[in-house]
Amino acid sequence: LTAYCFLHFESLVKSSMSETTKPSLRSITLGEIADKIGATIKGDSKTPISGISSIDDASPGQLTFLTGARHLPLLDQCKASAVIVPRELQEIDRNLLIVDQPYLALALAAQLFIEPPSLAPGIHPSAIIGEGVQTGADTRVGALAQIGSGSKIGDATRIYGGAYIGSNVTTGAGCLIYPGATILDGCVIGDRVIVQSGAIIGGDGFGYAQDQQGRHFKIPQMGIVQIDDDVEIGANTTIDRATFGRTWIQKGAKIDNLVMIAHNVVVGEHSILVAQVGVSGSTRLGKHVLLAGQVGIAGHLEIGDRVRIGAKSGVGHSVKAGEDISGIPAIPHREWLRTVGNLRRISNIRDEVRQLKQKIQMLEEALQKE
Amino acid sequence: LTAYCFLHFESLVKSSMSETTKPSLRSITLGEIADKIGATIKGDSKTPISGISSIDDASPGQLTFLTGARHLPLLDQCKASAVIVPRELQEIDRNLLIVDQPYLALALAAQLFIEPPSLAPGIHPSAIIGEGVQTGADTRVGALAQIGSGSKIGDATRIYGGAYIGSNVTTGAGCLIYPGATILDGCVIGDRVIVQSGAIIGGDGFGYAQDQQGRHFKIPQMGIVQIDDDVEIGANTTIDRATFGRTWIQKGAKIDNLVMIAHNVVVGEHSILVAQVGVSGSTRLGKHVLLAGQVGIAGHLEIGDRVRIGAKSGVGHSVKAGEDISGIPAIPHREWLRTVGNLRRISNIRDEVRQLKQKIQMLEEALQKE
Amino acid sequence: LTAYCFLHFESLVKSSMSETTKPSLRSITLGEIADKIGATIKGDSKTPISGISSIDDASPGQLTFLTGARHLPLLDQCKASAVIVPRELQEIDRNLLIVDQPYLALALAAQLFIEPPSLAPGIHPSAIIGEGVQTGADTRVGALAQIGSGSKIGDATRIYGGAYIGSNVTTGAGCLIYPGATILDGCVIGDRVIVQSGAIIGGDGFGYAQDQQGRHFKIPQMGIVQIDDDVEIGANTTIDRATFGRTWIQKGAKIDNLVMIAHNVVVGEHSILVAQVGVSGSTRLGKHVLLAGQVGIAGHLEIGDRVRIGAKSGVGHSVKAGEDISGIPAIPHREWLRTVGNLRRISNIRDEVRQLKQKIQMLEEALQKE
Repeated sequence: LTAYCFLHFESLVKSSMSETTKPSLRSITLGEIADKIGATIKGDSKTPISGISSIDDASPGQLTFLTGARHLPLLDQCKASAVIVPRELQEIDRNLLIVDQPYLALALAAQLFIEPPSLAPGIHPSAIIGEGVQTGADTRVGALAQIGSGSKIGDATRIYGGAYIGSNVTTGAGCLIYPGATILDGCVIGDRVIVQSGAIIGGDGFGYAQDQQGRHFKIPQMGIVQIDDDVEIGANTTIDRATFGRTWIQKGAKIDNLVMIAHNVVVGEHSILVAQVGVSGSTRLGKHVLLAGQVGIAGHLEIGDRVRIGAKSGVGHSVKAGEDISGIPAIPHREWLRTVGNLRRISNIRDEVRQLKQKIQMLEEALQKE
Repeated sequence: LTAYCFLHFESLVKSSMSETTKPSLRSITLGEIADKIGATIKGDSKTPISGISSIDDASPGQLTFLTGARHLPLLDQCKASAVIVPRELQEIDRNLLIVDQPYLALALAAQLFIEPPSLAPGIHPSAIIGEGVQTGADTRVGALAQIGSGSKIGDATRIYGGAYIGSNVTTGAGCLIYPGATILDGCVIGDRVIVQSGAIIGGDGFGYAQDQQGRHFKIPQMGIVQIDDDVEIGANTTIDRATFGRTWIQKGAKIDNLVMIAHNVVVGEHSILVAQVGVSGSTRLGKHVLLAGQVGIAGHLEIGDRVRIGAKSGVGHSVKAGEDISGIPAIPHREWLRTVGNLRRISNIRDEVRQLKQKIQMLEEALQKE
Repeated sequence: LTAYCFLHFESLVKSSMSETTKPSLRSITLGEIADKIGATIKGDSKTPISGISSIDDASPGQLTFLTGARHLPLLDQCKASAVIVPRELQEIDRNLLIVDQPYLALALAAQLFIEPPSLAPGIHPSAIIGEGVQTGADTRVGALAQIGSGSKIGDATRIYGGAYIGSNVTTGAGCLIYPGATILDGCVIGDRVIVQSGAIIGGDGFGYAQDQQGRHFKIPQMGIVQIDDDVEIGANTTIDRATFGRTWIQKGAKIDNLVMIAHNVVVGEHSILVAQVGVSGSTRLGKHVLLAGQVGIAGHLEIGDRVRIGAKSGVGHSVKAGEDISGIPAIPHREWLRTVGNLRRISNIRDEVRQLKQKIQMLEEALQKE
């Protein structure tokens, strides 16, 4: 798949601006980390670790990582106190956390250190809180944020400065609603949902009926958006409310920036939608679907589980579970690769046909002479 | 056209979350509704109706609708007090509103019930209102909204919480400016215009002049955006101000989310621009133009009345009225369909050419032998 | 290149809404303007000029411009006090500023007159300013704007109403941060940077590690966004913070609306990214690169200096300096043009192959008869 890469492993390794790494707030022993991420430890399990960084950037007390032998030469200069490594690098003479999947180990280890952007406890006096709003333990609300009447905000959820929560919205616990994010009336948000800045959850779906003069009359959009646990929504992404019922983002789905999710769409569990994707109304994506960057999908389709769609593809028909497709209109990915290859050969084919024509003419003339 | 569907009729019928439908605020008799939407009534014209819902979701007192026989089986369980039906279903033994176009009837009937999201009358004390701002009868302004000096806001227009209206902006009556929408200095908005959250009206157009070193110098963008009556602008859509003069969205046009309208573009009356479309500077769209999702149009073109452009197309030339086009670059839609079909046959054509070559070689050898 | 035009010269000339042009605030002599923009003057160098406008729109006291003979007929009715013209029009009997590049001259002259949107001096009492914020000489902060603790804002930088600046952000001098723009914690902004409304600088990059059940675990995004001098960022564009290190927009780059810049991307000096472009993580663009509208680039690529990529192209491989490419997947632009031309001829090729088949069959039959 010409997928727009959404995991940037190389960049993790080669960065070089140590001063920008946020300070970690706590210290854990290497042994505790090994327990939590399921790593085999080599070296001193009592080593205190206070943060994570890239190999060219790590300070003493930090944990770093290698994903293969490629960046091994950087290790000589590296000041990290321990290294996450894949099994094939377990001979390195350092404090090691030996794992099968270094990136996953990195992500899991990072959960132990990373704090969300700071936000003072409580509700900022400039925030506007409507009537009957319920907040949980350690709910934090930033400056100039708004929560409309009747909304319920879960424990430890943070509504950052300038975010807008409409009326009768429900959010679970541990959510991060970033500055300038907007969640409109009636939407239902699960636990640990992250909404990046500028995302609009619950704008009106795009639905009109046309009269005989070609004028468009708005069909009221009376449903909601429901977002389940552990979903992340990217910056300036828009998820429209349903006409009736709900637009539904199921648990664990991750949606990048500037994505458009139309009314009544269902995005299945643990699906990945890369930036600038558009999904038209009432289409249902299965579980573990991958849509690469700038893909567009027409409305009222069924995209099966584990379908992967190549970058920039345009999809006009339903797709069975497990298929890889690409192209405009999208076809099986292998066929698309072959077609794209053939496309560049059309000139050759034209030339060959021209030559064949001449040969046939010569043959015809030869036959006539006889 | 591989149009991204923007009317989601199926989803209207099959939704299933009754608790999310907003309560209606008034009750009207079936007879009054029939009058207003031009329907033939069958049954008790005095039946009070207090709202609209989908067939699997409607409560007693609500009006529902059928668009054809397909969902007829759901009617048995349906608790609605009346049903909008097309003429071919007029034999149903229920209170009926019989119409030619059920979706249009639904949209028109819905106008009678739907209230915009609630907003307290008056101007919220936390709103920032500049000098010389004029507001109309029942203009409502939400919390932390801003209206810059010299702006005029029409009767019954609602500026929701956190929306930003610049200086010297004019809006007509009955507009809905949703939370976090931004209308910048000097723009002119008509009556009943809806601006969804996050839309930016009047950012600077993208214009630079290059010097010999390849550096870019900003050409000041001194014009405005003018939006005429009954236009709707989607969430996070951007409409740039003109360099000089105006970028102009004409009456009744409907623009979906994340659309880019560049400086000095004209969008003609009653045109439809589906999500993630981009129209480059100074291009003029005629009336009743349809741009499906993710279409891109180059600058300085004329797109005629009633032109329809298939999803994801890229348009580099002007298009005559009434044409349907598709593809990158876009060609007549039928030709595009044929080309796309042929494209998948290139492998076959290559194989055939190869076979022909062999046959010709055999023929040549056969002739030489003689 | 089917580039989405980003300079709209025609529209500059043909606009027609004089009342919308903002009043200029000062008057300069024609001679002073000639000095500043390097023009040869013809006529009265003492003529006072108080603004710039298009040829059909200019008032007495204003400067207008012609880029060629095409709009010469409009000059008869034009009330402007002077005209910028290319050398070939230097015979016109008016006050003239004669230059080699009229658009560049226009842009340079306009810098002398244009004021940014008005904003009262000082910090609006409704703005929320965190602890330890440092502001410069004539820093202006609008209503309901926020600046987080520890941020430093340069001289004459304007933070318009409702803009959000996070903690520990640094901006240089003379920046314009428009209403509703968001710059998140730790980002570093140079001098004279313009950030249009709704742009999100520093949202989290899109990075996850997958476990064996296909669930995604967030990789913390601990880096920043660095934006160098003289960059402009369009409305609702998103630039994600780096995983580690920085996402880097180098000096003089101009980025249009609704563009997606992923984590750890580098955009080289004086590059132009037209609307709705997407650049995936860790890709590096060289200097003076031009990406036309809706281009998508995969991750971890190197795009060389002065590369130009046609509208809507999809790029899956690195590109050498100076190349022009187009298509999905992108190929050299000339080859793409030829391929697109051939594509429409596939039908003909098919027909020819069919005819050749028949002829060969006839030849075979003829030979068998002998």
